[in-house]
Amino acid sequence: MGDVDRALTMRSPAASAREVRARIRRGQHTGQTAGLAAGLVQGNVAILPADWAEDFLRFCLLNPKPCPILAVGRPGRPELPTLGGDIDIRSDLPRYRVFQDGVEVATPTNISEYWRDDLVAFVLGCSFSFEWALMEAGLRLRHVEAGSTVPMYRTNLDCAPSERFRGPMVVSMRPFRPAEAIRAIQITSRFPTVHGAPVHIGLPQAIGIADLGRPDFGDAVELGADELPLFWACGVTPQVAIEQAKPPLFIAHFPGCMLITDIANATLATP
Amino acid sequence: MGDVDRALTMRSPAASAREVRARIRRGQHTGQTAGLAAGLVQGNVAILPADWAEDFLRFCLLNPKPCPILAVGRPGRPELPTLGGDIDIRSDLPRYRVFQDGVEVATPTNISEYWRDDLVAFVLGCSFSFEWALMEAGLRLRHVEAGSTVPMYRTNLDCAPSERFRGPMVVSMRPFRPAEAIRAIQITSRFPTVHGAPVHIGLPQAIGIADLGRPDFGDAVELGADELPLFWACGVTPQVAIEQAKPPLFIAHFPGCMLITDIANATLATP
Repeated sequence: MGDVDRALTMRSPAASAREVRARIRRGQHTGQTAGLAAGLVQGNVAILPADWAEDFLRFCLLNPKPCPILAVGRPGRPELPTLGGDIDIRSDLPRYRVFQDGVEVATPTNISEYWRDDLVAFVLGCSFSFEWALMEAGLRLRHVEAGSTVPMYRTNLDCAPSERFRGPMVVSMRPFRPAEAIRAIQITSRFPTVHGAPVHIGLPQAIGIADLGRPDFGDAVELGADELPLFWACGVTPQVAIEQAKPPLFIAHFPGCMLITDIANATLATP
Repeated sequence: MGDVDRALTMRSPAASAREVRARIRRGQHTGQTAGLAAGLVQGNVAILPADWAEDFLRFCLLNPKPCPILAVGRPGRPELPTLGGDIDIRSDLPRYRVFQDGVEVATPTNISEYWRDDLVAFVLGCSFSFEWALMEAGLRLRHVEAGSTVPMYRTNLDCAPSERFRGPMVVSMRPFRPAEAIRAIQITSRFPTVHGAPVHIGLPQAIGIADLGRPDFGDAVELGADELPLFWACGVTPQVAIEQAKPPLFIAHFPGCMLITDIANATLATP
C-alpha cells in the first residue's frame, strides 16, 4: 500500500474495504481474501436466476445456521448497498466459480460476461467473522496456526429442504480444551449472522463423522487428548445444496475469495 | 394452601415467598425447599463472625463462579432487605447446620439461640435458579427426573485462596446430548449470579474426576453413550473451604433447605 492507502485505512474501516475492493476490481488481487481488510465482515456469495432465487431464499430462511443471510440483491442489480456503497458483485470478488447445469464451466476474475437481467446475488455470513471474534478473545485456532484450511465434514444432519434445494449440513471443526470450548460457544453465540454457536461438540460419530482425520473438504488438524472437537455449521452447505439442484446458471465465490464488506465484525455482535 | 394463600400466590411472586417463609418461620415446614415458591430465587446461606466474614467476602469475590454473592447482611443484623422485606435469617430457613471449630454441633430449625451481635449472613446463588432456566427452556435434568440429588465431585481445580479460606472447586454434573449441551451453556451463561456457565465439559479426568459413578456428594446419574457430562461450579465449594478453615462459629443452611427470596429467577438473566 502507498501512503495515501495507508492513510485511508487508518481513517476508517469502510475506506479500507473500498481500497481493497478497488484493487480487486482492477484485477490487482486475484487470490484469497483472508487477512485483507482486518476486522471487516467477508461474505460467501451465491448468484442465481430469479426463478431459482426465491426458492433458495426459502432454503436459507429454513436453515439459518449454515445459510445466514447478510444481504440479497435485487434481480439484475449488481449493487449491495447495505454492505458497501460502491459494491459491484460482478467484479469485486478476486475469483468466481461459474456452474451451468451443475457443472463448473469457468473460474473467472470478473463475471460481467455472465451477468443477466434476472440474476440475484446472495451474500451469506462466513466463519472468518466468528474466527475474528474468537481470536480477539485470545483463543487460538489450530488451522490458522498451521496455515491450512479449516477441516470440513458432511454430516448426517439433513438441512430442512425447500422445493428444489436439499442436502446434508456441512460443518467445520475447531478443537479446543473444555474451558475454551465453553468460552468459544459463548463468544460465537453472539454472532448469529455468521453461523453463530456450534451445532455440535464432541462425539463426531453422533453426527455421522467416522474419522476426523479425513475431512470431506479442507485439511485435517490434530486433536489433542485434552481437547474436544467443536463443529460449526459451514457455508459449504448451501453450495452443496445448489450443486445438487443443478440450476441452469449458478455463480459462487471461488473458495477463500470472499466479498469484503464495509461492515465491522464487531457490529454483528448481539448483546 | 387455602384459598387466601392461592390468591396471594397468583397476585405476586413476593406474596408467595412471604407466605412460604411465614410457614417456615412458624416451624410448619422443616424439609427441603425444592419446588416451593416456583420461579423464585433460592439461596445458599453461610453465617460467620465479622472477624471471619471480611476474609470470606474476599474469598467469594476471588471465586465468583462457585461463590456468587446475592446479598451480604450487616454485622449482627438478621435482615436481608434486598432479598425480601420481611426476611429474618435466624428463622426463615427450614433447617440449619451449626459448626463450632469445624465440628457440626446441631441441626436446628431456628438459630436464635446461636445468634450474636457480630454475625454476618451471606446468601450465595444456588443451582436451583439455573436449573429453573434450563427446564423453562425445555431441557430435561436427569437427577430431577430420577428424584435424586445432583451428583457433585471434588476437582483438581483449586479455588483462589484468601487469607484463611482455600480448597478445591466442587462441581455438580448434569448430562446432555451435544446440541442440548450447547444450549445449556448458552442459557446458564445468562445467569452469572447463580454459578453461570459450566466450568468444564466432557473429559472428567482432566479436572481430576476418576469415576463419574462415584460422586463425592449427591447421587450418581446415568451418562448415555450419546451424552457429554457438563460440570458447573457448585455451592458446596464455599462450605468445604469454610469447614477446613474451622472458624469458631459457622452456620449454614441444611442441605436442600435454602432461603427463599422475593426475587424472580427470570430477573437474574443478563441480556
